[in-house]
Parts: sequence; structure tokens; C-alpha cells
Amino acid sequence: MTHRIITISREFGSGGRTIGKEVAAKLGIPCYDHELIEKIAEESGFAAEYIKERGEYSSHRGWLASAFSDRDFNGHSTQDDLWFAQRKVILELAEKESCVIVGQCADYILKDSANCLNVFIHSDLDKRAERIVKQYGESDVTPEKRLKDKDKRRAAYYQFYTDHKWGAIQNYHITLNSGVLGIEKCVEIIAGLY
Amino acid sequence: MTHRIITISREFGSGGRTIGKEVAAKLGIPCYDHELIEKIAEESGFAAEYIKERGEYSSHRGWLASAFSDRDFNGHSTQDDLWFAQRKVILELAEKESCVIVGQCADYILKDSANCLNVFIHSDLDKRAERIVKQYGESDVTPEKRLKDKDKRRAAYYQFYTDHKWGAIQNYHITLNSGVLGIEKCVEIIAGLY
Repeated sequence: MTHRIITISREFGSGGRTIGKEVAAKLGIPCYDHELIEKIAEESGFAAEYIKERGEYSSHRGWLASAFSDRDFNGHSTQDDLWFAQRKVILELAEKESCVIVGQCADYILKDSANCLNVFIHSDLDKRAERIVKQYGESDVTPEKRLKDKDKRRAAYYQFYTDHKWGAIQNYHITLNSGVLGIEKCVEIIAGLY
Repeated sequence: MTHRIITISREFGSGGRTIGKEVAAKLGIPCYDHELIEKIAEESGFAAEYIKERGEYSSHRGWLASAFSDRDFNGHSTQDDLWFAQRKVILELAEKESCVIVGQCADYILKDSANCLNVFIHSDLDKRAERIVKQYGESDVTPEKRLKDKDKRRAAYYQFYTDHKWGAIQNYHITLNSGVLGIEKCVEIIAGLY
């Protein structure tokens, strides 16, 4: 395996996605984020919208409810089917080319099969709140509550399917506080490690 | 406050101390590690040996027992006296000059009063085991057990006096896996952030 993969896990609003895109652009390799949803849609037959709603991005009905309900005679839920499709797509990507993958438990999925640099991006709550309001606009819910909800979902999703703790130092080769260090510095450091 | 401080917290055997020394040498600023013990000894009147045994470095009798026992009429233990001396020495250092401080909860002690870059160095258990055997020699206890004991003590000490979780991503601006990235790369990144 000669491809090299950078996986980026991130707190919501930390700019992890932007950092991933910029690192990939700098290195001249593709970055998979929302593009992954399309690929999982193709693989699984589920609609992209459905995947967004049920997967790591879930913002309406919790995926957890689905993970425990609707199980078929093998004990598989539709949520599990999504997980297997996600896993397959990510393994195939890593097999095919060097790239940046944002989120989707890629660090865990690739841990035994690819040459990965695993990155976690976080930032202080106030800076993240400022960022999501700027990026996604205001909503009825306070930005702090939106951040906590989203991170909670990501953590629960990660924990459920990997049995590891999301955001635990030991899972990552490097973690960066983007609010203090700045997006550009984070991009420079990560690209420099490639 | 124009001084800039780099605090380095580290898992035992991760090479955090070596990284601290090399970063300081590269930047031409002092590094305080064991030197801190001498300063705390001067400040507190306790012997350096006693401080090593009772402080973060504690390797024989646990400091925790001492923290809960031997309390005077103010409810202070000798362990608390050590903590206050440690705190005073670190605050004065940061007031006086730019420097690197290894361990001693410096990230927490300086959080409201200094311009800090807070770093955490960790590494995989097998690499750390190899390193401590090379550096400190064999002992009756397996290296894995020595590592776990030491980290447990550091974590408990940090938690007791700071009420924060040692090694939680949110406490640090950057965390690095020195076993995967290499000591030199860690030094380069940290010095580059200064």
C-alpha cells in the first residue's frame, strides 16, 4: 500500500472541513467530504438525503434510534447497512488513491489497512459558535446548543460503530486547536507532515 | 505580558522531556523540568528528593495518600504546601522570561496569566516501553506496568489539583504522537508555532 491518506475528524464548527479541502488542494490530492455521501448513496442504494439524515451528519431524527430498531432477521438495521456501505466506500477509496477524508470514522475504518495520518481539529466553544453563525446563519436554537448536539451525535456514532472514544488523544497522530492556531497554520502543519 | 511560554505535558516514555529540551535549545530559551524541582525546593524549604517523591514524579509512596492525610488546622497537607510552592515558582518564571516548562500542571497554572502554547506529547505503549527500557534500564516490574503506574499518578495529580482531565484534547493547543511522527518532527512543529 503506497497511497497515503489523511483522515480529518473534527468538532462541529472548528473549520475541519475547510482545513481538509485546503490541505488536499495544497497537496494536489482529492478531498472527500460531502462527495463521500454521494458515493455511499451509489453503493447502498439509499438516497443521499436519507444518508445525510441518518449518518454522521444526522441533524433531525437520531441515528441511534434507527441503529437499535428496524432490525432484520440477521439483526441488521438499515443504519448498519449504511455503516457497511460507508466502510466499503472508504476502504475502496484508500485502495485506489491518496486522498484526504473528512469525518465518517475513516481513521478507525482504515486503521489496519492504510498508511494514514489521523488528525483531529477542535476549537473553543465561543470561536466555533461565531463560525457556525457566520457560515450557516442564525437559527431558533442557540449556536452553543447546536454545537453540543452535533458533537454529541458524532461522538455517539463513532463510539457505537468503533467502540472507541471520539476525540480521545490516543486515536490521533496530531490534534490542533484551529481557533488558537488559525486555519492557515493548521493547513501548513498537516501538509508538512504528508 | 510579552513573554511566551511553551508548556509540555507528556505521557511517561513519550520523549516529551527531550522534545522540550530540544525546542528550547532551538529557540534559545531556557527549559525547566528537573530544574523546577530545585526551584520548588528553594521556595518551599522541602528537600528536592522529598519533592520528587511526593510530586508529579512520585514513584514510591503515592502523593494521594499524603494529599488526604497529615492536614493541619487549616486543612492544608504538606502535599498542598508543595502545590502552592510549585504554583508560585511557575507563575514567577512566566513573569520573568520566555521559556519551556515540562510537566508540573504548568498549562493549568498559567491559563489566565500568560501567553502559552500548550502541548501534549503521547505515543503508543510499545514504543514507550522500548524507550523507557533504553533510557532507564530494566526493572522488576514490566515496562508496561511502569508506564501505566506513572501515567495514572500524573493523571490523578493533575485531576486533583486542577479539576481538569489530564490528556483531554481541549486542554491543549496541539497534541502529537511522537512515536509515529518522530521526535525531530515534533520539535520542528512546536518551534515553528512559537
